[in-house]
Amino acid sequence: MSTDDIARSNGNGNGNGKHLPVITTDPVAELSPMIGFPASEKVYVEDGDIRVPVRRVTLTGGDAPFDVYDTSGPVNHDLHHGLPKLRRPWIQARMADGDTGNRTQMHYARRGIITNEMRFVALREQCAPEFVRDEIASGRAILPANINHPESEPMIIGKNFLVKVNANIGNSAVSSVIADEVEKLRWSIKWGADTVMDLSTGEEIHATREWIIRNSPVPIGTVPIYQCLEKVKGDVGKLDLAMFIDTLIEQAEQGVDYFTIHAGVRLPFIPYTASRTTGIVSRGGSIIAKWCLIHHKDNFLYTGFEEICEVMKKYDVAFSLGDGLRPGSIADANDRAQFAELETLGELTEIAWRHDIQTMIEGPGHVPMNKIKENVDLQQKVCKEAPFYTLGPLTTDIAPGYDHITSAIGAAMIGWFGTAMLCYVTPKEHLGLPDKQDVKDGVIAYKIAAHAADLAKGHPGAQKRDDALSKARFEFRWQDQFNLSLDPETARDFHDETLPAPAAKGAHFCSMCGPKFCSMKITQDVRDYAASQAQATEVEAGLAAKAEEFKQVGDFYVQS
Amino acid sequence: MSTDDIARSNGNGNGNGKHLPVITTDPVAELSPMIGFPASEKVYVEDGDIRVPVRRVTLTGGDAPFDVYDTSGPVNHDLHHGLPKLRRPWIQARMADGDTGNRTQMHYARRGIITNEMRFVALREQCAPEFVRDEIASGRAILPANINHPESEPMIIGKNFLVKVNANIGNSAVSSVIADEVEKLRWSIKWGADTVMDLSTGEEIHATREWIIRNSPVPIGTVPIYQCLEKVKGDVGKLDLAMFIDTLIEQAEQGVDYFTIHAGVRLPFIPYTASRTTGIVSRGGSIIAKWCLIHHKDNFLYTGFEEICEVMKKYDVAFSLGDGLRPGSIADANDRAQFAELETLGELTEIAWRHDIQTMIEGPGHVPMNKIKENVDLQQKVCKEAPFYTLGPLTTDIAPGYDHITSAIGAAMIGWFGTAMLCYVTPKEHLGLPDKQDVKDGVIAYKIAAHAADLAKGHPGAQKRDDALSKARFEFRWQDQFNLSLDPETARDFHDETLPAPAAKGAHFCSMCGPKFCSMKITQDVRDYAASQAQATEVEAGLAAKAEEFKQVGDFYVQS
Repeated sequence: MSTDDIARSNGNGNGNGKHLPVITTDPVAELSPMIGFPASEKVYVEDGDIRVPVRRVTLTGGDAPFDVYDTSGPVNHDLHHGLPKLRRPWIQARMADGDTGNRTQMHYARRGIITNEMRFVALREQCAPEFVRDEIASGRAILPANINHPESEPMIIGKNFLVKVNANIGNSAVSSVIADEVEKLRWSIKWGADTVMDLSTGEEIHATREWIIRNSPVPIGTVPIYQCLEKVKGDVGKLDLAMFIDTLIEQAEQGVDYFTIHAGVRLPFIPYTASRTTGIVSRGGSIIAKWCLIHHKDNFLYTGFEEICEVMKKYDVAFSLGDGLRPGSIADANDRAQFAELETLGELTEIAWRHDIQTMIEGPGHVPMNKIKENVDLQQKVCKEAPFYTLGPLTTDIAPGYDHITSAIGAAMIGWFGTAMLCYVTPKEHLGLPDKQDVKDGVIAYKIAAHAADLAKGHPGAQKRDDALSKARFEFRWQDQFNLSLDPETARDFHDETLPAPAAKGAHFCSMCGPKFCSMKITQDVRDYAASQAQATEVEAGLAAKAEEFKQVGDFYVQS
Repeated sequence: MSTDDIARSNGNGNGNGKHLPVITTDPVAELSPMIGFPASEKVYVEDGDIRVPVRRVTLTGGDAPFDVYDTSGPVNHDLHHGLPKLRRPWIQARMADGDTGNRTQMHYARRGIITNEMRFVALREQCAPEFVRDEIASGRAILPANINHPESEPMIIGKNFLVKVNANIGNSAVSSVIADEVEKLRWSIKWGADTVMDLSTGEEIHATREWIIRNSPVPIGTVPIYQCLEKVKGDVGKLDLAMFIDTLIEQAEQGVDYFTIHAGVRLPFIPYTASRTTGIVSRGGSIIAKWCLIHHKDNFLYTGFEEICEVMKKYDVAFSLGDGLRPGSIADANDRAQFAELETLGELTEIAWRHDIQTMIEGPGHVPMNKIKENVDLQQKVCKEAPFYTLGPLTTDIAPGYDHITSAIGAAMIGWFGTAMLCYVTPKEHLGLPDKQDVKDGVIAYKIAAHAADLAKGHPGAQKRDDALSKARFEFRWQDQFNLSLDPETARDFHDETLPAPAAKGAHFCSMCGPKFCSMKITQDVRDYAASQAQATEVEAGLAAKAEEFKQVGDFYVQS
């Protein structure tokens, strides 16, 4: 399918030929990646023909410009045309250079090849390309890069790299239209989402996805069983492997980079959920559980896993092995159902790896803090260090409306313990579909969690941004402090609420202490004092040296 | 001083006789403790003459009513008159019954006495009064209860009790008026703050405090050095022990329950901060540091600590030993300055305990996750398990505007590791003074952190609320789910944004999956299936038993 004109292609695929809503080019200026980030410009860090985007923040006070990892994609592109196809020549060159039918980055890595995608990632993560290749070859990291999503800017998910954040978007039967979802995609990556999952379940599922992929510089994930369920009009019993594989091919052709597949929900595990407080809360998990009960057969995704692998490797779609039996409440955390499924995911990881298919493992859910580490440790053991990709976890159930916070706590911790990617949770979790503000709140809460995890892991360079911002704060460079933050406009607005005068931005005090007394102003006194102490010590040392000289001279005289 | 008429008393104390702003009785209905909490009523749990308030939430679906720990105080009182003096008869009876001049709860506890305050706390925390007494006697917990704040409803701060939350309020030289601060007090406790610190630094510091204490059912803390600085018009060099002690007496007479005193900022430690990224960021710490440098003398709060103790024990004001050298950035976490001060706080704790003065220890600040546990462990060791009371800590510096989240992560973790009380951080931290919305956001983020910590610690009963809410969620009892949450109105509003129809509140689906497919609906199928499996197992077991019977009969025949 030609992807040069999205509107033309939209009648295909889902076959409804329905007229699409018009999406105007860049209707909302605030969606533009650079709006809201003052003193910032998108520049490219280069290594030969590889060009990695960063957002460069200009600082004052003699400090060097600061480069921020940037996921927001090219500026000013026509949504109807889609993004430039950055990776197309790389993919074509590889196909020309002896195509084996297996196009995964893992396949290349295991043959010792460093792809351009790996070089891109190495530059982006500031490490050696060989390290990127070896992490992918071992299965410890994945580089989601469907050959039909050439618009993507390569990124990597693995515990030895920066912790990543996924944002979920997607309409449901109840609400939302395509334009809104494209807007949410662009909004998510503007705030720093590293991948986006399109969880649409309603009509126009194919067309929505097409618009999203063609305009996405980040990998796109989906849950194909949702579309299957649309195809059988909700009649779960009619699902089967053949139509599932058809759907995988349809979505792989469009360019989906990773599929959530709930192949670990096995028939024998389903009764383990009967006594739970909240049963099965994963949509995909419950679809499969229902299918298993209707047919009294084991999960066709499990029994047909090898056939599924054949599709994945042809397009380089990565597995995101779904946790269909994840706990939906604190009461159900780390229970038998959850861990039985996890064991199965370990088994499936080994099968996927035999096909050189990149694989990550999804994780909970709702888990109290004291049970979080056990999740990562067990996942890493059972799944041989395949990347862990967790939803939160929420550390308490009692705060609907604030689950970006209940889960940011768990996300930060699980990231520190070795989770590679964190799936965001918005304030609307459990209550409704996120709007733009919720998406932003969710992404920012998770950028905080991911960065806190990078700091705790001692990721090289992670602390540089904290140091630059804190130095600016301490030197009363207010604008620099704002501009280095995750959300400069909010920081500035909050400051201006108390001290709105433009002059206050240059003030060497803030509204907390006021002009009369400021703790930070005292530090100069302290530094002067310490310097004078040091000087005194030097003088003393000088005297002592002189005394020693004298003593030696004296000794000489005595000796003589 | 009579406290029956606050307005009359306001001219005293700070001696300015200035006309006070009029505060109307209950001007804002939303401040009322029960507004915004539907299906809730304030009731009292009783044990003899002790009556502990709880907010009782009525549930549907046959579930028993749920009682929530409640800090919001009596309903419908006249702000000009102040709250009823619940503890006055208890205090008077103790004074009549042989007053030793030492009125601290620790003093009574160490003499084996169980005060009514301890009985109140035992009922509130659902444990034995003897346990409360013993924890206070050992110094592991404090029960802040100035004899001149009889309006307070007793609460306890210690690692073997529920984790508590403090909210800071207070005006500065730049903004705010008394009425706003009383409003923030009431707003804080409505959302669940366990104690409130009045950090006012501007004019009318005495009058503001009087209004706050007379209307506060929770313990009030202050930082007396702020008022001292007002008295010397900001001239730090003029501070001395005599005027500090005068100020302590002034505030203790008003009824302040705990004082933050930065007695650990010693002269030799000050040079340790010179090479820091953010020097000294504590206001109190920097005042003392400046004083030390001006006089080139050790901290008068350290050298005069025994004299300070004489005031504290007479009124039962608890020490909150301030961490004036706490780190103000990730770069400065766990450094020599911070830990040198902590060692000194351990030394001072022992002195305070020799006077039977209740003592807690303040902690950081900015700390990456991997360095949090070391803080608690060292504090518990050095300070012999005296309660730890920490500000956050913030786990990254890069998100001004969202520091309620950066710090809720650290707060939850440090609470789990043994911190007894968490000082909230609002979204305005580093940027400006919190308004009402910020106070609410800060308190709720910290109620989440404290509760997550209680869950992780396995505090008895903590999980009941999660279980009740998750059960309601699973059974589609939407109203119950909202009403059991920390902020029912926000939860309801978020739900209504996507599904506004009142009928949707009874719907057995939500906007996330839509009516056609719902994961939770499948659980009934699963339960039926599990039951049928169990039945099958029973049938099999029955057959096996029959077979066994037959075999034995058979054996009999063979034998015969």
